[in-house]
Amino acid sequence: MEEKNVRELQEFKKLLNEKKYAALRGKAQDMNEADVAEIMSNLDDVDMLRMFRLFPKELAADVFSMLENDDQQYIITQLSESEAGSIIDMLQSDDAVDLLEEMPANVVKRLLANAREDTRADINHLLKYEEDSAGSIMTVEFVDLKAEMTVMDAIDRIRAVGLESETVNTCYVLNPKRLLLGTVALRYLLLRQPDEIIGDFMNEEVISCNTGTDQEKVAQIFKKYDFEALPVVDNENRMVGIITVDDVMDIMEAEMTEDIERMAAIIPNDKPYLKTGPIETWKKRFPWLLLLMVSATFTGKIITSFESALNQYIILAAYIPMLMDTGGNAGSQASTEVVRGLSLDQIHFEDFFKVAWKEMRVGLMCGATLAFANLVKCVYLDHVSMAVALTVCMTIIMDVFISKLVSSMLTILVDHANLDPAVVASPLLTTIIDASSLMIYFSIAKVMLGI
Amino acid sequence: MEEKNVRELQEFKKLLNEKKYAALRGKAQDMNEADVAEIMSNLDDVDMLRMFRLFPKELAADVFSMLENDDQQYIITQLSESEAGSIIDMLQSDDAVDLLEEMPANVVKRLLANAREDTRADINHLLKYEEDSAGSIMTVEFVDLKAEMTVMDAIDRIRAVGLESETVNTCYVLNPKRLLLGTVALRYLLLRQPDEIIGDFMNEEVISCNTGTDQEKVAQIFKKYDFEALPVVDNENRMVGIITVDDVMDIMEAEMTEDIERMAAIIPNDKPYLKTGPIETWKKRFPWLLLLMVSATFTGKIITSFESALNQYIILAAYIPMLMDTGGNAGSQASTEVVRGLSLDQIHFEDFFKVAWKEMRVGLMCGATLAFANLVKCVYLDHVSMAVALTVCMTIIMDVFISKLVSSMLTILVDHANLDPAVVASPLLTTIIDASSLMIYFSIAKVMLGI
Repeated sequence: MEEKNVRELQEFKKLLNEKKYAALRGKAQDMNEADVAEIMSNLDDVDMLRMFRLFPKELAADVFSMLENDDQQYIITQLSESEAGSIIDMLQSDDAVDLLEEMPANVVKRLLANAREDTRADINHLLKYEEDSAGSIMTVEFVDLKAEMTVMDAIDRIRAVGLESETVNTCYVLNPKRLLLGTVALRYLLLRQPDEIIGDFMNEEVISCNTGTDQEKVAQIFKKYDFEALPVVDNENRMVGIITVDDVMDIMEAEMTEDIERMAAIIPNDKPYLKTGPIETWKKRFPWLLLLMVSATFTGKIITSFESALNQYIILAAYIPMLMDTGGNAGSQASTEVVRGLSLDQIHFEDFFKVAWKEMRVGLMCGATLAFANLVKCVYLDHVSMAVALTVCMTIIMDVFISKLVSSMLTILVDHANLDPAVVASPLLTTIIDASSLMIYFSIAKVMLGI
Repeated sequence: MEEKNVRELQEFKKLLNEKKYAALRGKAQDMNEADVAEIMSNLDDVDMLRMFRLFPKELAADVFSMLENDDQQYIITQLSESEAGSIIDMLQSDDAVDLLEEMPANVVKRLLANAREDTRADINHLLKYEEDSAGSIMTVEFVDLKAEMTVMDAIDRIRAVGLESETVNTCYVLNPKRLLLGTVALRYLLLRQPDEIIGDFMNEEVISCNTGTDQEKVAQIFKKYDFEALPVVDNENRMVGIITVDDVMDIMEAEMTEDIERMAAIIPNDKPYLKTGPIETWKKRFPWLLLLMVSATFTGKIITSFESALNQYIILAAYIPMLMDTGGNAGSQASTEVVRGLSLDQIHFEDFFKVAWKEMRVGLMCGATLAFANLVKCVYLDHVSMAVALTVCMTIIMDVFISKLVSSMLTILVDHANLDPAVVASPLLTTIIDASSLMIYFSIAKVMLGI
């Protein structure tokens, strides 16, 4: 929280304690609703609810839509059923769905029973779409015009639909079957004469997505076209809603957090760090740790099977951590860049051989650089025999080469098989690369040292 | 590229080969400029330039602003100086600055010499701001109104400034000293009577940022308030530009890629994977590999110093990879979550002890879970002595506990020292944790096994 809001928080607490409710209400009305929401989420639950009850209806709805999901759930379950219903009525349909999706089915049923019939219909409709699909994140509130309307008719229509929403900067022209014919930016309505016909100047080159389109794809469309809103059509091509850019930013952030967490062997969930209790965090983390620990057994087995070689040349053990780390780092560099390229839509399955060829060259160059540095170190610092030094250096070259090649190829293949490449990128590859590093090491050692 | 555009690409190639220029121009004009740009970037350079030269001026500027930076550079250097100058004139100032920042100073000078004087002034002004500051990403094109204007005056002003830009959905009300008094959403102008005064209904609760604000902070403001544009003021509080949401999406993506690359021990650069040659990629990757290899020497030294212990109990070597990996994974889970929390503004320096306390508990729980699993495995599968089994299990508990605690604390401290926590998150921590894992292991072994 910023300093300004830390001060405001103290103010609000004071006003609450002194029961100066009118002053508190006035203060909240003068502030941006996002700031009010931030301050409220730093109050304890009881005070948050007290403060919320003081707000006039419209402010309450605005602030509510800016609160974190868990705060929303708390408030909505504490309100009377009719109060809760009217909050639901005032939310945009996508915000309402976000909230209800997280709640138990019986609570959802009760809340919807107290909402207006059209709200209920909209929400029930939206709840049917698959999670993470365009349908599940769209809002059904948008301004629809007819092609034969005049500019004057259009402006009347906009007033009727409601100007509060930011979703009116673009209006959508539909035919009687609700097929999308074109769009009109609000700013052009200002320029035109009142009696001009919408159909004559609307933009007919429309880009839309389907209700089933994945949200990651939706984010890519926004980035490509720099849109502020994207129309969503159903399977019969009828327009059913829009997705706005602020929701897309949230999606981008959530998808990135997921990617990063998977790469660090964490089971993603979307709660902020400090709001997740230790047991919940433990549940996110130990399954992967356990799986990786078990799979590292395999690596241990390799070492055990070369026990006699190690017994003869105990110095070989000293290089094991370095070789494993180097292979692991080299591999995760490659897979990370490929994962990122895939999710930014810069790499596709067709590029498989291009990627492999690139990684082979980079792998050789990196391997050679490291091997050379290592040779110098082995000879001048470690004073090991030339045979051992060469064993280590040759292992480095092979190891880096294979790590980069295998990591990049595996990442693309996993993505192509519709599994998540981020999971492979780091945790699983570690095990594969550890094992291959050791196999290479001991195989070369056997030949070079004649064990 | 999507299938639709793959087909279009073939069409365009055909039209170019058959020199059907009028048809090509017409086709391009009917398409979205982002699609035209995507198709052009898949042509070879000569064809891309040929196609570009066919476009009428306005289409040329629209498409140009959607091209990748390297394609833009190629085209602009191939055009005559006056052609290039007029492209620069037609770009939004932030897009022009993005382009020029990447080019050699003498080329920039020549290009600006051929641009209009006001363009030159705007760009020179913007080029002065530090990279990644709000000043460097803002555009100076926005609609400024005066508080005493009527709605009619305002609409005239908007027409004069130009309606093409999407940046007019919000207008900014300035006083004669160019201080920002309020904002008016375009949609409200539609509702009001022509003779109403702007100052009477403008929104006076304005949120802005300073030219020096870091772009990551800018992105956070956008996310918090769901803005479409954010006004930027200079140190004297005069409004100098706006930042639009489409640029913020690019920033979020770039920052995220940087974070991810740093965590994977890659030196970030912003070129797409397939457009980076092997030598360039090698340069991004080998410095970290080398540094990490050298620092792993330290780990080797620890093993060497326990050579006699290893000689007595060679079985201890078999558990080294598992212990190092487990420590590393446990640590990177903690630091990754903290890095993410920091960059999403969910964790702050004040939370230092909260985070440490949480990681201690999670670390103990994870460590105990893993140790228990490992005890079962050691006894029933590996058939090692109880003393060795307990040595390994105790190491796991200590190792996971310390790894999580050290990783999380170090991440917060590094961030507080204004260094990049993402670098620490993975590569550097690996070395520290490897070393600590081994020290713990051998220390416990010494006591337990009486070596």
